[in-house]
Amino acid sequence: MKPTIRDVAKMAGVSISTVSRVMNAPDTVVESKRSRVLAAIEELQYQPNSFARGLIYKKSFTLGLFIPDIENIYYSGIIRGVQDACIKLGYSLMICNTDRDKDRLLAYIDAFHEKQVDGIVFASDMIFPEYYEKLSGSRIPFVLVSSHSYQYDIPSVEIDDKAAAYDAVKYLIELGHTEIGMIGFNHENSIAGPPRYEGFVQALTECGLEHTIKRVKYASHRFEHAYDAADELFSEYPEITAIFCVADEFAMGTISYLNDRNISVPDQVSVIGFDNLRVSDMYIPKLTTIAQPTYDLGYRAAEKVHELVTTGSVDVLREKMDHELIVRQSCREK
Amino acid sequence: MKPTIRDVAKMAGVSISTVSRVMNAPDTVVESKRSRVLAAIEELQYQPNSFARGLIYKKSFTLGLFIPDIENIYYSGIIRGVQDACIKLGYSLMICNTDRDKDRLLAYIDAFHEKQVDGIVFASDMIFPEYYEKLSGSRIPFVLVSSHSYQYDIPSVEIDDKAAAYDAVKYLIELGHTEIGMIGFNHENSIAGPPRYEGFVQALTECGLEHTIKRVKYASHRFEHAYDAADELFSEYPEITAIFCVADEFAMGTISYLNDRNISVPDQVSVIGFDNLRVSDMYIPKLTTIAQPTYDLGYRAAEKVHELVTTGSVDVLREKMDHELIVRQSCREK
Repeated sequence: MKPTIRDVAKMAGVSISTVSRVMNAPDTVVESKRSRVLAAIEELQYQPNSFARGLIYKKSFTLGLFIPDIENIYYSGIIRGVQDACIKLGYSLMICNTDRDKDRLLAYIDAFHEKQVDGIVFASDMIFPEYYEKLSGSRIPFVLVSSHSYQYDIPSVEIDDKAAAYDAVKYLIELGHTEIGMIGFNHENSIAGPPRYEGFVQALTECGLEHTIKRVKYASHRFEHAYDAADELFSEYPEITAIFCVADEFAMGTISYLNDRNISVPDQVSVIGFDNLRVSDMYIPKLTTIAQPTYDLGYRAAEKVHELVTTGSVDVLREKMDHELIVRQSCREK
Repeated sequence: MKPTIRDVAKMAGVSISTVSRVMNAPDTVVESKRSRVLAAIEELQYQPNSFARGLIYKKSFTLGLFIPDIENIYYSGIIRGVQDACIKLGYSLMICNTDRDKDRLLAYIDAFHEKQVDGIVFASDMIFPEYYEKLSGSRIPFVLVSSHSYQYDIPSVEIDDKAAAYDAVKYLIELGHTEIGMIGFNHENSIAGPPRYEGFVQALTECGLEHTIKRVKYASHRFEHAYDAADELFSEYPEITAIFCVADEFAMGTISYLNDRNISVPDQVSVIGFDNLRVSDMYIPKLTTIAQPTYDLGYRAAEKVHELVTTGSVDVLREKMDHELIVRQSCREK
């Protein structure tokens, strides 16, 4: 028969709640009791049962992670970061793929509530009021990564999307391009869509290139949609010589479209991406792009959830991390 | 106060174990009792608490999934399949990234044991005796996906790797190539490495091309390693006109290498991949490849775990699914 917390308490001659405190907040237990408990745990080879532990402490030592699209390569870096932080902090990680489906996401919040996960990292999706109400109602602490909310005071970690987009477009302008297009995220269902568009507009405006601001088409997260958007963009504005794509998937879709039309990248058209996915370095041509620190974003988000879970609040509510321009082969001077 | 299973039993006038059976094996409960229990659940708006449920039924309604490398795009299709099956079957899914690290994997088995997950899907890694012993010792049912074991009787779902590799190489031969190379998985740490090599050898032998069998270099799962392996292969055998790559990542690494050396694919060298990742259709050139039904493999693996969990055994121990040659643009006639 497996030893229980009761057996440990009995052997150590202390109460069950003391054993619990030794495991969860050892500093609150006097040294003499603490060492007796630790000795009993070792002698009995006691392994806490997470169900029983859940009932006693209302902690499951599990974090949940919502990913909007597990097939989108962007999230793999975030997942690694979240998971490595979980390993360091002693949590198991339960990853769920929501497919940006409201009903599925709401059902997962119920599942996480039922499993009493200690906290949730919510990756790069919009926070709709239904989500906020359900998450708040469930009293599970949560943190946004690659996302933010100005409507609610939810802790978040992301880059400065507007500044990053500005840097990308400024780079194209510095290469001598004046006829610049953009393939952006639909604004209705994307948190990064509006600020990246603002960065595009700001760079063009500052440089007196207002005439090219209207050359924007939108796509929804997938390569294939960007391929179609590039088709529309070039059919309408064949004079374009450079394109700012708000995702590396979009850059690949755009280059794939141009290649199918025998338009050479970067000889005839320059394409800059966003994200710096692993694949951007294996693409033909290798993508010039804006790097997001996806691993660090994920790692920091998990740390912030831990901060919330253990202290009830966070030091910095909305945190920004640095982006970086990575120059490879998909852009050249006009 | 939230209603408990006790409240439901009381209102329905049945025992707690009857309520449990209504929720988990309704066919075993007579209709009259079953409808009383369902009415009580509805009236009390009873939501089972997974911790309490775990203690009572020793079931957590959670499956675990081990992924060897969450950044490898190959796994996203498997994850989606496993997860969609979990949704259908009523399980939450806990995904863990092992990085092919033995100690981490063993620690995760402990974590899953502690959380009493009902079953585990173990994706495409070798089953070392330590894993098998720990998993068997923990009495968690488990199923292999994109992997198998002949040493142990573990249920598995995969494609026929040898036949798939044979088809890839046969295709290159039918295009007129006689100087064929291969970039394979290291045999020590890959379950698919040896059978894919055997398929390569079989196709060449059948067609009288034994002289080209030795043209093989190995890489370990990542694009960058395949880039280096392609460098070795072409330095040693510059006469090669076609390459069989055992993964689309390897095909991209190889094409990236050739492109950096100004060798055109497919004009000068044909490259065939394996997997049919989403990215294979966005690559330049679009990859000709062997498609694996990754979504179906994942879905079926989760169904098999469920079969094991609910019946204690599986109908078919080692299951094979079909592969398919997808002809795109990275190969052409010699």
